[in-house]
Amino acid sequence: MLISSSLLRRRPHRWGTIHKTREPLRPPVGRKMLKFDVVVIGAGILGVSSAYHLQKSSPDKRILVIDRLGDAGQANTGRSNAMFRNTFSSSDNQVLANSSIDFYLHVQRELGIDIGVDTIGYLWLMSDRQLSAAEGYLEKMAGNGIDFRRFGETELRNAIPGLETRQDSDEARVMSLEEVDGGIFGPKCGRLAPDKLVGFYRDRFREMGGQVMFNQEAEHLIVEPREGLGVEGEPFVWQESSVVGVRLGDGSEVRAETVVVAGGAWNNELLDPIGIDGHVKAKKRQLFAVPAKGVPSLETLLWTKGLNDSGTLPFVILPKSGLFVKPVKESGEFWIGCEDEINRPFITFPEHDLERYPAEPRYYELNVHQVLREYMPQFEGARPSRMWAGLYSYNTLDNMPYVFEQDGLIAVGGDSGSGVMKGDSLGRVVDSVYRDGWDAETTLYGGATYRASKLSFRHRDVEREEWVL
Amino acid sequence: MLISSSLLRRRPHRWGTIHKTREPLRPPVGRKMLKFDVVVIGAGILGVSSAYHLQKSSPDKRILVIDRLGDAGQANTGRSNAMFRNTFSSSDNQVLANSSIDFYLHVQRELGIDIGVDTIGYLWLMSDRQLSAAEGYLEKMAGNGIDFRRFGETELRNAIPGLETRQDSDEARVMSLEEVDGGIFGPKCGRLAPDKLVGFYRDRFREMGGQVMFNQEAEHLIVEPREGLGVEGEPFVWQESSVVGVRLGDGSEVRAETVVVAGGAWNNELLDPIGIDGHVKAKKRQLFAVPAKGVPSLETLLWTKGLNDSGTLPFVILPKSGLFVKPVKESGEFWIGCEDEINRPFITFPEHDLERYPAEPRYYELNVHQVLREYMPQFEGARPSRMWAGLYSYNTLDNMPYVFEQDGLIAVGGDSGSGVMKGDSLGRVVDSVYRDGWDAETTLYGGATYRASKLSFRHRDVEREEWVL
Repeated sequence: MLISSSLLRRRPHRWGTIHKTREPLRPPVGRKMLKFDVVVIGAGILGVSSAYHLQKSSPDKRILVIDRLGDAGQANTGRSNAMFRNTFSSSDNQVLANSSIDFYLHVQRELGIDIGVDTIGYLWLMSDRQLSAAEGYLEKMAGNGIDFRRFGETELRNAIPGLETRQDSDEARVMSLEEVDGGIFGPKCGRLAPDKLVGFYRDRFREMGGQVMFNQEAEHLIVEPREGLGVEGEPFVWQESSVVGVRLGDGSEVRAETVVVAGGAWNNELLDPIGIDGHVKAKKRQLFAVPAKGVPSLETLLWTKGLNDSGTLPFVILPKSGLFVKPVKESGEFWIGCEDEINRPFITFPEHDLERYPAEPRYYELNVHQVLREYMPQFEGARPSRMWAGLYSYNTLDNMPYVFEQDGLIAVGGDSGSGVMKGDSLGRVVDSVYRDGWDAETTLYGGATYRASKLSFRHRDVEREEWVL
Repeated sequence: MLISSSLLRRRPHRWGTIHKTREPLRPPVGRKMLKFDVVVIGAGILGVSSAYHLQKSSPDKRILVIDRLGDAGQANTGRSNAMFRNTFSSSDNQVLANSSIDFYLHVQRELGIDIGVDTIGYLWLMSDRQLSAAEGYLEKMAGNGIDFRRFGETELRNAIPGLETRQDSDEARVMSLEEVDGGIFGPKCGRLAPDKLVGFYRDRFREMGGQVMFNQEAEHLIVEPREGLGVEGEPFVWQESSVVGVRLGDGSEVRAETVVVAGGAWNNELLDPIGIDGHVKAKKRQLFAVPAKGVPSLETLLWTKGLNDSGTLPFVILPKSGLFVKPVKESGEFWIGCEDEINRPFITFPEHDLERYPAEPRYYELNVHQVLREYMPQFEGARPSRMWAGLYSYNTLDNMPYVFEQDGLIAVGGDSGSGVMKGDSLGRVVDSVYRDGWDAETTLYGGATYRASKLSFRHRDVEREEWVL
């Protein structure tokens, strides 16, 4: 419709004829424009879980998932340690993870779909100081129905072959290593296969009619006024604007009523240019695979009995630097890594090519191995046979994930290294926000409800996570 | 002291002789190393206020302020609109700003030092919808002893020459302009001169023995283990590390027990590389100076009587886009600007040269002028004679500033466009955290106390600011 020309008449510059239209602007001639109800950007765990739950709740909606790589879970999800736990300091994390784990167990055991779930348990080795600090977390866990078991030092020495609980050597003193005075064991914790998990969501999503588009870069989000005038420079600040789609690397556009941003470490790259904070800082995390085969003391450790049904060592966390030892029985190796608090950079806009963040042999040598061999001397001569790295996406505010909706988009991210273990719940939160808006009540797997707005920033109400790996 | 060589003996690589030392490493030969108790990076309002309060509380400490520019307040502080208000939605902002204003009034009126304070008042013009939304804020303001006055539509029409309160034209409809149904006036709000304010803090700081170093770039923060081994690659993750100083652009180092990071929009640039989130997103804000001289209707507006002791129009905020009109009597002009919510980028790592963020004539034309002339038709033919831009430093979490201490540093920032108006209080918070640690109680000007940790992230407990300009 042609609006009153008085708006035009008084203007001191050339605006041409102003057409008021509710139709979106057309992309340049010759470029494709696809229309969907929802487009999900990113096919990592948070993207595919969101897409699955959206499609399941809204079978008639046309939903598209796009990703720059050739399949789902090929970036940081696939590089992750893919451990899961329900042992957290934050009640919110306890609830979100516990119900996700229940869903994964349901998929594995009741649906009979192999997603590699193996509940080997988490075993945190701690000094008395650390045990006292954890008391408050354990109390909350008990209140939220999260199982755990305490171990004494002697029990640990008997259970874990070769474990050195006393740290009184010169080396231990130089590194300020704390002694192992006890342990906390979480039985409903363990491993899964991230490629199989994202494959489950991807396949079910497609079976329900969802569409995927791989090898397509999301270049930038398209913001347009709700009532466009067709004037260059729109949207103006006095126009109510919203995100209406995404421009792809090949110049084509995908338009959708709702855009779900699930870009993980790349959320800032999509959101910051339109003036919405992506609230993510990425940090490199490295994994070092150390073979046990052929080293009797390491094989004995790998096949530690009595602590879980798997007949392997649990996932063990040492009292220093969050250093962890993960048994990988199918390849006969341990995956080992640690965390660093300061002096390793936060990355705000990560490279697209993750090969730019390589694992560093020297990091293993100086930061990991020095500590590891003090607690588990059988690693003395062990070195990694391969190593890789990926990016954690931190929400440094409280180490808790976020889901917020604003102006036509829903953003999910900031999972701070635990996207896999809370992926199912976060997908359900995204879906409920899509259907019911910011004040949605999300029904998690198992029936518990969770107020979605707790994960937003405007109405944020989550307990900070202190028990970080 | 030479430590046990057994740490060395077992190492598979060449570490040379390991010396354990508490002395900092020396910078390369020929480069200067200066030592202070505290170094403050950044001489904007937050830096100089912090330095002043630190030096005042700790007269024996050696404190240094460094800045990349030639004097204090030459970056975004000097480009700011330099308005102050105590009218906020957040009780925290109310308290922090109100006491800062009291201090500025004390400096101007009791100490007799001209910092350009002129309490012209803030006048928010609002629709009924906006007035209802503000009711909760006003209640909190009353509870915190903040004065305000309500105006009705007729009163406003009589008070402000030419004000168009009804918005029923085609243009108003296209732009969804809301009508002016009433107004809120804050009498203890107004203008000050940012160059004079930072000059006050800088000069008093120097008089007390504080040192300044201008034209010196803070290149990066230096992180070292508390107990160094003198081994390449330190600090390792198993070492307790802290920030011990800053490397300057000329290669020299400034070492200090405490480093205060007050870099404003550049906080990320300093903090992210050491793995501490700078928590700032910058956004360009533009100011357009429109001369009133020689245009009788604009002169009449500028010299509006009866609303303040200054005999000028108050600072007026229109009901759309936070568009504001500031009278500048000494130059006979108005400064005009507005805010934008989405579709203008957040800048995570701003350029050092602020000329890279120029004001845009077209922005005035399309975003500002279209709205302005509908409410104040006397601006119809008016155009800016000059314009400039600066960067706001948002903390997008809750639009509230932060002060946190971690590993030898204290960071202050994220003032979201209101650093000048809360500058004094934030400087006092920094000083109290320096003296008493994260759980300090800050005594604000006037005697009120404020729990410093409320402004941290770990123990954050502030009310989100919704009344943003």
